[in-house]
Amino acid sequence: MNFASDNAYGAHPDVLRALAECNGGAMMGYGADPVTARAEAAIRDALDAPEAAIRFVSTGTAANALVCAQLCPVGGRIYCHEGAHIQTSECGAPEFFSHGAKLVTLPGDCGRIDADRLENALRIGAGAGLNGGRNAMVSITNATEWGTVYDADRIAALADVAHRFKVPVHMDGARFANAVASGSRSAADLTWRAGVDVLCFGGTKNGAMAAEAVVFFDPALAEGFDYRRKQSGHVFSKQRFLAAQMLALIEDGLWLRLAARANALAARLAQGVRDAGGGLLAPVQSNAVFATIPAEAHERARAAGAIYHLWPDRSAQGLDPVPVRFVTSWDTPEDDVDRLIGLLR
Amino acid sequence: MNFASDNAYGAHPDVLRALAECNGGAMMGYGADPVTARAEAAIRDALDAPEAAIRFVSTGTAANALVCAQLCPVGGRIYCHEGAHIQTSECGAPEFFSHGAKLVTLPGDCGRIDADRLENALRIGAGAGLNGGRNAMVSITNATEWGTVYDADRIAALADVAHRFKVPVHMDGARFANAVASGSRSAADLTWRAGVDVLCFGGTKNGAMAAEAVVFFDPALAEGFDYRRKQSGHVFSKQRFLAAQMLALIEDGLWLRLAARANALAARLAQGVRDAGGGLLAPVQSNAVFATIPAEAHERARAAGAIYHLWPDRSAQGLDPVPVRFVTSWDTPEDDVDRLIGLLR
Amino acid sequence: MNFASDNAYGAHPDVLRALAECNGGAMMGYGADPVTARAEAAIRDALDAPEAAIRFVSTGTAANALVCAQLCPVGGRIYCHEGAHIQTSECGAPEFFSHGAKLVTLPGDCGRIDADRLENALRIGAGAGLNGGRNAMVSITNATEWGTVYDADRIAALADVAHRFKVPVHMDGARFANAVASGSRSAADLTWRAGVDVLCFGGTKNGAMAAEAVVFFDPALAEGFDYRRKQSGHVFSKQRFLAAQMLALIEDGLWLRLAARANALAARLAQGVRDAGGGLLAPVQSNAVFATIPAEAHERARAAGAIYHLWPDRSAQGLDPVPVRFVTSWDTPEDDVDRLIGLLR
Amino acid sequence: MNFASDNAYGAHPDVLRALAECNGGAMMGYGADPVTARAEAAIRDALDAPEAAIRFVSTGTAANALVCAQLCPVGGRIYCHEGAHIQTSECGAPEFFSHGAKLVTLPGDCGRIDADRLENALRIGAGAGLNGGRNAMVSITNATEWGTVYDADRIAALADVAHRFKVPVHMDGARFANAVASGSRSAADLTWRAGVDVLCFGGTKNGAMAAEAVVFFDPALAEGFDYRRKQSGHVFSKQRFLAAQMLALIEDGLWLRLAARANALAARLAQGVRDAGGGLLAPVQSNAVFATIPAEAHERARAAGAIYHLWPDRSAQGLDPVPVRFVTSWDTPEDDVDRLIGLLR
Repeated sequence: MNFASDNAYGAHPDVLRALAECNGGAMMGYGADPVTARAEAAIRDALDAPEAAIRFVSTGTAANALVCAQLCPVGGRIYCHEGAHIQTSECGAPEFFSHGAKLVTLPGDCGRIDADRLENALRIGAGAGLNGGRNAMVSITNATEWGTVYDADRIAALADVAHRFKVPVHMDGARFANAVASGSRSAADLTWRAGVDVLCFGGTKNGAMAAEAVVFFDPALAEGFDYRRKQSGHVFSKQRFLAAQMLALIEDGLWLRLAARANALAARLAQGVRDAGGGLLAPVQSNAVFATIPAEAHERARAAGAIYHLWPDRSAQGLDPVPVRFVTSWDTPEDDVDRLIGLLR
Repeated sequence: MNFASDNAYGAHPDVLRALAECNGGAMMGYGADPVTARAEAAIRDALDAPEAAIRFVSTGTAANALVCAQLCPVGGRIYCHEGAHIQTSECGAPEFFSHGAKLVTLPGDCGRIDADRLENALRIGAGAGLNGGRNAMVSITNATEWGTVYDADRIAALADVAHRFKVPVHMDGARFANAVASGSRSAADLTWRAGVDVLCFGGTKNGAMAAEAVVFFDPALAEGFDYRRKQSGHVFSKQRFLAAQMLALIEDGLWLRLAARANALAARLAQGVRDAGGGLLAPVQSNAVFATIPAEAHERARAAGAIYHLWPDRSAQGLDPVPVRFVTSWDTPEDDVDRLIGLLR
Repeated sequence: MNFASDNAYGAHPDVLRALAECNGGAMMGYGADPVTARAEAAIRDALDAPEAAIRFVSTGTAANALVCAQLCPVGGRIYCHEGAHIQTSECGAPEFFSHGAKLVTLPGDCGRIDADRLENALRIGAGAGLNGGRNAMVSITNATEWGTVYDADRIAALADVAHRFKVPVHMDGARFANAVASGSRSAADLTWRAGVDVLCFGGTKNGAMAAEAVVFFDPALAEGFDYRRKQSGHVFSKQRFLAAQMLALIEDGLWLRLAARANALAARLAQGVRDAGGGLLAPVQSNAVFATIPAEAHERARAAGAIYHLWPDRSAQGLDPVPVRFVTSWDTPEDDVDRLIGLLR
Repeated sequence: MNFASDNAYGAHPDVLRALAECNGGAMMGYGADPVTARAEAAIRDALDAPEAAIRFVSTGTAANALVCAQLCPVGGRIYCHEGAHIQTSECGAPEFFSHGAKLVTLPGDCGRIDADRLENALRIGAGAGLNGGRNAMVSITNATEWGTVYDADRIAALADVAHRFKVPVHMDGARFANAVASGSRSAADLTWRAGVDVLCFGGTKNGAMAAEAVVFFDPALAEGFDYRRKQSGHVFSKQRFLAAQMLALIEDGLWLRLAARANALAARLAQGVRDAGGGLLAPVQSNAVFATIPAEAHERARAAGAIYHLWPDRSAQGLDPVPVRFVTSWDTPEDDVDRLIGLLR
């Protein structure tokens, strides 16, 4: 019963199959292979973005931090939610890659930035002078670190503000599939049509071994990005193996089916939490459930081997009820969900 | 009537005189000169720290950010007040020099961190894992960005917490002279005796042209620091001219006389603000006055040529009363203070 | 007929099989999985180094450059051959990760540094002062970029010099398997027993998809390395998939069988070159053949679809004979070698 | 008798006078002061470059390395002479500030790059691909580290090559004054008219305390440079004191008079060396004399207190004759030169 993270589970069999299929014989290295070309085309199709420049890397931290470096000029300020992965969980990678960007964090309901706060922050940034640095980019996460989802209108509102201040919008899409699968709008509607400039399209948390695609909707924004990848050791010589993973997920829609399954399990678990008298700390819109559960239920679940995180960190230890985070994945057994629900009662 | 910053004023005549006095003839470069040796000795004396390693640089941002880099291992978390200069006013220099340190900011009354909050933050940091990074250092500013002063007990309380978590304490002493001059405790009492490991001892804001001393109370902490200075262009070939500035300020106590004068002017101004019906946003303990003044008074003062900042930034524009910051310096004319007081009435 | 590089070929079937085998179910992420533990054990066994600290990354550039950063203090000088991969082929990654290390390059016969030159360079470095920086590490490549191999005595001689100057020795072992397979000495004899402190043990060029192991023979040298990996996006959440690749190669000796095959093909090709009247630019000791071939033969080979590089770069275009580099791999078809030999005649 | 370096001497009295003159009262900080404006104007005049953007920093290493960072995109290759200051004497500052630029060094007679070699190197760089990086800039030093001078034609030839490969030309002008004073061409002729894009116009070695001007002949190249200066701690709050130094040197031609004096002393010393049977290792065209002197004369000079460097480093110790470097400065006493000449006989 592992609900610690969606990266606790492995790779979808189709992903492994795709590796085997592209394995035979020699290919040119560093991306000049036909698998890369096919994967890029599949992503452009899925995003209805025929001009987009696509680059593959193996981790979400690499994807996000390289984009921060790419979009952020010297002295830049990056605006993000105070709970954003780039702020809390990448060990300073954005600052490292950007060589000193200042992350300016914003509070916001359940992981989502609101447009008024962003506008105010950008206005302050516009007058921050040399000492304070200059506005560089806005980063939003969809689905958020709280399992909530920005709908297309919210994204458009944020992007509109950002663009008025002449800075681009980055979307950390480590769980982009879960965001798309949670609603009725297309991947295009949730990205470039709403004003997103660069998307980190996650594969790892959704059935890949280790693969992410960086999507520059305006290919001019990708200038020099390959040197950045190479200089940081993120260009695979045998890139076909990165590309094949994304290809397997995207080409026939597997990515959305997997994400829909994870989302459905989270919804079921959320219902179980409520039925058991637990509370929800955030609306359950993708594949994570933030809940408070009675300390007694928590002990029972732990004793039975359920793995999950206290929220937001170990400082929750000893509280009653206990705030916790459960994450479901494309491969979480249904039985595990039901067993956990049983334990919570 | 310039109350914008204490760096708006020039250098004390004794500082210029000291430059001329050490100017004759050839000396070995890069610090191997007798002026540097004398200045180091004077600082050790002033701090009652005969073992301390001293290094000179020309700006406060360089001093602070080089120390951050020096004390912060890869993946490090630096704890500071949310209004600290290293967070708000150095254009990402700490992140740049440290190659990706994460500044973890703490709220706190009038620019001062409190020990409980610090302890809680360090406890979270201790469990932050790879993703969150590791505890690296605590940085406090004295006098603070709010013009308040940490007394020796408060510093000791913070240092005690830091040291229990095995991280060193940095003091940003851009206005260290003002802090010392404001009370009855010695420079040693406010630094190493209270647990401060590294002090950035400011000269620029207190009558130097451009000179700061980095003081490592434990000289082992200075290992390799000279390479850091050189690699970042902060080693002066003619270092005597940096050292001479600090020497002139410190050798005979000029630094404390200058700071006392600035502090006294701030106290006088604060009284004037109060007499004029203005409010104080923070206790006036050094050379800055954070006040709210009637919009009418603000317009009058501005019209008469008074220069000062809205606080905390331009978003204060249009408020009534207007929050403002007045900074006095060693060289602010008394008449300017009285004139400003007159205008506020 | 692809002789461009050994990374033009895919992954060994056993490697893919290993991915499938470790795929089922949930495991803890970021290296806390049983596959990682087994792979580490296998590497320690293969190197007869039971204390070594092992870390996995996905590319050779990441491995080398992270080690440079780890071993090189601020202001450090890294000594390497002028043709070393870290100097010529990593797009500045060592400088990027180390934040300004100076690569001091040494000439040397067929890719190998000689001990006297190294000693002289280190002696100069020891007196280089602040401006020149300080000795930090020595990096050697085995097998070298010229396909030659350092035997254990040569390595020991270099390591002895380095250690006398108190700097550690790094071995870029992107083709370490080929080096070991080319002689009769053990992996331990060619590394720690000869004085190597850190080995980048390559998998990618020898049948992995994308996997390298960084081996710190003294685990104290690994302090903080995980933060470095994380901060640069080189920690895989599903690390089992990196570890499994190395495990498949190493556990039962596959790595040496694959390398021996590649080496044998290179020897065969070298003989063919000589038989065809071509010259060898370097002794063929591993899996690369540096040769001069008649322009006519070059054209014939290219026309028939043979892929390989001019040497050292495109400036060789138009020469007769043409200097070229042929690289064989674990998966190069024998027929391709024979066909190429035929074309050269 | 200090011939170690031109930075062993102090500041010209006019420079100190200028500090005093601009010292009175308050001025806006960070460059928004009238002294800065006047100094900028004086430099534009001296260079006949009315559009140039000027920025002040305090050290030559800062000037050069910040320009490298400014001109060099990620993955960039910087071409310079193998003896260039940026390569040998800045402790990795260019790599540090540029975050991983690769310095590609070229041999060349007496410190000067030749155009053919540069062209060949740029051609290789143009085909270096991701692994090798991309052409970014060419850096030349005038006067060179060997005391020689590029004349306008040589500069134009190099700049022409650079511009054909679409990379800008940087001139390290730590001793630019000496280069200009050595010939009959104007400062403009030796810079922008010959194709130089950015000049680091040195003051420190020519009578300033610590002041250099970075001159962007095309102001568009300066975009964001101020953030770079600030982030690295190189913006002086009291910038008037940097600007005043350059102003004093440049406004009325003092810089050229001082440099001419230093050059004349070097010529006189060179004649003395020759008269004493010593050899010259390079033509004496500015203020440095590279000579071989009999070991006996060397011992005599040292015993008499003459200070100078062995060349190129301490490895020259014990040779007979001994290769040495003598540097003269604006303030070297004539008597010292004559005494040294006497000792060499």
